[in-house]
Amino acid sequence: MSSTAHSKLKINAGRLLSRLDELGRVGARGDGGLHRLAASDADRDGRGLLADWMRAAGLEVRVDEIGNMFGIRAAAADLPAVMSGSHIDTVSGGGKYDGSYGVLAALESAETLNDADVATGRPFIVACFTNEEGVRYQPDMMGSLVYAGGLSAADALATKSEDGTTLGRELERIGYAGDMVCGSIVPSAFVELHIEQGPVLEREATVIGAVETLQGISWTEFKLSGQANHAGTTPMALRRDAGYCAAAIAVEARRIADEIGPSQVATVGVMELEPGSINVVPSAARLTVDLRNASNKALVRAEEMLDRFARDLAARENVELTSRRLARFDPVSFDDVIVAIIENTATGLGHAVRRMTSGAGHDAQMMARICPTAMIFVPSRDGISHNPAEHTDDQHLVDGANVLLQTVLNLSAGGA
Amino acid sequence: MSSTAHSKLKINAGRLLSRLDELGRVGARGDGGLHRLAASDADRDGRGLLADWMRAAGLEVRVDEIGNMFGIRAAAADLPAVMSGSHIDTVSGGGKYDGSYGVLAALESAETLNDADVATGRPFIVACFTNEEGVRYQPDMMGSLVYAGGLSAADALATKSEDGTTLGRELERIGYAGDMVCGSIVPSAFVELHIEQGPVLEREATVIGAVETLQGISWTEFKLSGQANHAGTTPMALRRDAGYCAAAIAVEARRIADEIGPSQVATVGVMELEPGSINVVPSAARLTVDLRNASNKALVRAEEMLDRFARDLAARENVELTSRRLARFDPVSFDDVIVAIIENTATGLGHAVRRMTSGAGHDAQMMARICPTAMIFVPSRDGISHNPAEHTDDQHLVDGANVLLQTVLNLSAGGA
Repeated sequence: MSSTAHSKLKINAGRLLSRLDELGRVGARGDGGLHRLAASDADRDGRGLLADWMRAAGLEVRVDEIGNMFGIRAAAADLPAVMSGSHIDTVSGGGKYDGSYGVLAALESAETLNDADVATGRPFIVACFTNEEGVRYQPDMMGSLVYAGGLSAADALATKSEDGTTLGRELERIGYAGDMVCGSIVPSAFVELHIEQGPVLEREATVIGAVETLQGISWTEFKLSGQANHAGTTPMALRRDAGYCAAAIAVEARRIADEIGPSQVATVGVMELEPGSINVVPSAARLTVDLRNASNKALVRAEEMLDRFARDLAARENVELTSRRLARFDPVSFDDVIVAIIENTATGLGHAVRRMTSGAGHDAQMMARICPTAMIFVPSRDGISHNPAEHTDDQHLVDGANVLLQTVLNLSAGGA
Repeated sequence: MSSTAHSKLKINAGRLLSRLDELGRVGARGDGGLHRLAASDADRDGRGLLADWMRAAGLEVRVDEIGNMFGIRAAAADLPAVMSGSHIDTVSGGGKYDGSYGVLAALESAETLNDADVATGRPFIVACFTNEEGVRYQPDMMGSLVYAGGLSAADALATKSEDGTTLGRELERIGYAGDMVCGSIVPSAFVELHIEQGPVLEREATVIGAVETLQGISWTEFKLSGQANHAGTTPMALRRDAGYCAAAIAVEARRIADEIGPSQVATVGVMELEPGSINVVPSAARLTVDLRNASNKALVRAEEMLDRFARDLAARENVELTSRRLARFDPVSFDDVIVAIIENTATGLGHAVRRMTSGAGHDAQMMARICPTAMIFVPSRDGISHNPAEHTDDQHLVDGANVLLQTVLNLSAGGA
């Protein structure tokens, strides 16, 4: 078959959508939300379904030490493989697209190649990473992190959950403690297809996002300690109001995001006051600030601006301030060549496309440590995910899978 | 005895202080805090002690329908009486001075007059009002409110507590359901001596506050409803961040207090965010704002400024806003003549004195509805009250009681 003929290949939409539905029933709760935590019984059942489908598609199924699953479609030449995939574990009450869509679209790409009898120059591997969500065992993106060498398999397997279990034992229990050495297959390229989990594509009526960067994340907890005082008898000038300081830091976080510009986001999700009475000046307050930016330089600037503001404010208000960084991940820049391929492929298929940044973490950010990597996004209705209301239109799911198929075809054409 | 001789009369410091200690042990918890809620067993015991002391001092003890206690020191002439007093109920974990000091200092004034064999032109009445704190039965300042005609005795007696009791039954149970009609004695003047419960006198090294106004109070609850969103994937411009709006309203409350000036105070004691996760834009927020000012015009201006800010902000941020006034009391202006007498008396006794505003509510604000009224404040260490750490130096307690004695002497001299 000619390369022109390959460019007209389309995935089997019905098969992809029915598998999304079928996998979307594994671990479903009464409200439709999925409860398929990593290494749980539901995870085992979902993995079983996936392994069956992989084998039926003629893929060689391998499981590594941390439970990552790989379905290998061989090629004649002994070249590094192209890999695509995501995860099938969910948060508690998650939707059916987050992760599963990327795994099943990669599988669908392999089957489409099978159906059309296409021999690619490079092997193609469908990947399903363990414990991306990090709900039951921390940190998140664990399977891909271990695969990329960022955490030892032994340490990851020893991770304890609040439910008293360890990941290693649970993987043994569900039959997914494999023996393939993590990182032993280094792909020539990794592509992850995922729902956006944000509102940008929908708002712009754009179908495909070519993800060129992934935001760095900085989580800071601020604790303020002042003095409880009577709300009527204490003049403003004599107060040590921890609650006011917390509110002012939250407002400053927004101002910093506005000043730095559109790629900077800032969120105060937690704010707690003590004693929490209408007529008592708060003696203590706690808040968290989540800062994200695709540029590390800008992110550091945002952190410094906020830290300085909080210090100066606390000194001025005679309130004690302590802060600690709860999490810090540098931004990721994906591979320019793959991003351009995705962009051109989507345009060639007639889709509105935009380059964009991922605001959420993904397995692709870990794989980017060991091979050229990029991501493809499709729209999320109302930007909602981690929720039973998570939804992407069928047509967008099919469009995204076809962009993935053509991108994989392009990347796996062979050559050195 | 001449009026010059009267001006040298001093209260019996030892008697006052030992009675404060004795009453301060009734209802004491392990940590020293008092738990003497209105119409409780401890309240009964405290009232019993007070009634015994009143009778021993030759006062006629009367109890009205709402349980207010009056100890009457007769005068030859049938003129309206001068009244002084406060309350002996406490919050849970209260100190021994709040309320009790004003009652026992009034009693001490009567006994000092007895000891010196002083016949006043007007009767003098020591008052102890029921349920000033409003912890067990709402509203607070209930006994004086009913006495002044602001609430019917029947309605007040029917008030239910969260502990399942009604005030009327409890007053019967402890033996303080009296038959004197509320308001049946209208004094010619009412003076309440109280600890400041704020830091102003201590900071200024001033011993006596001549309280000329009592702050108006405005409590508002704001509820904001936006949309929960992913902290990474949702651009700032597409957010409907209820938490940001709550923080901005809190910061604006402070700004308004600064703009209006030193008599305006603003406190945000409650702020709650939902769902309260680090990486989720808050979908909902609730905060309360406590505004107080001695000028009603200024208080109304503060309310209007804050309401307008909140409305404009919510519209700009695409967040739904609801607000409701949880409480609203107009400021009280005390009687100029009595305030001047207090001020002159304190100065004459050699004390540093300042006119001031009460930031807390007191029985005096209710009595001001039916007769010329004012208050005397003494310093509170660190401004603390409603706390076992509540403290006023003995010398200040004695100084305040002597100012009360001389003020009572002045007001009860007689004449029309």
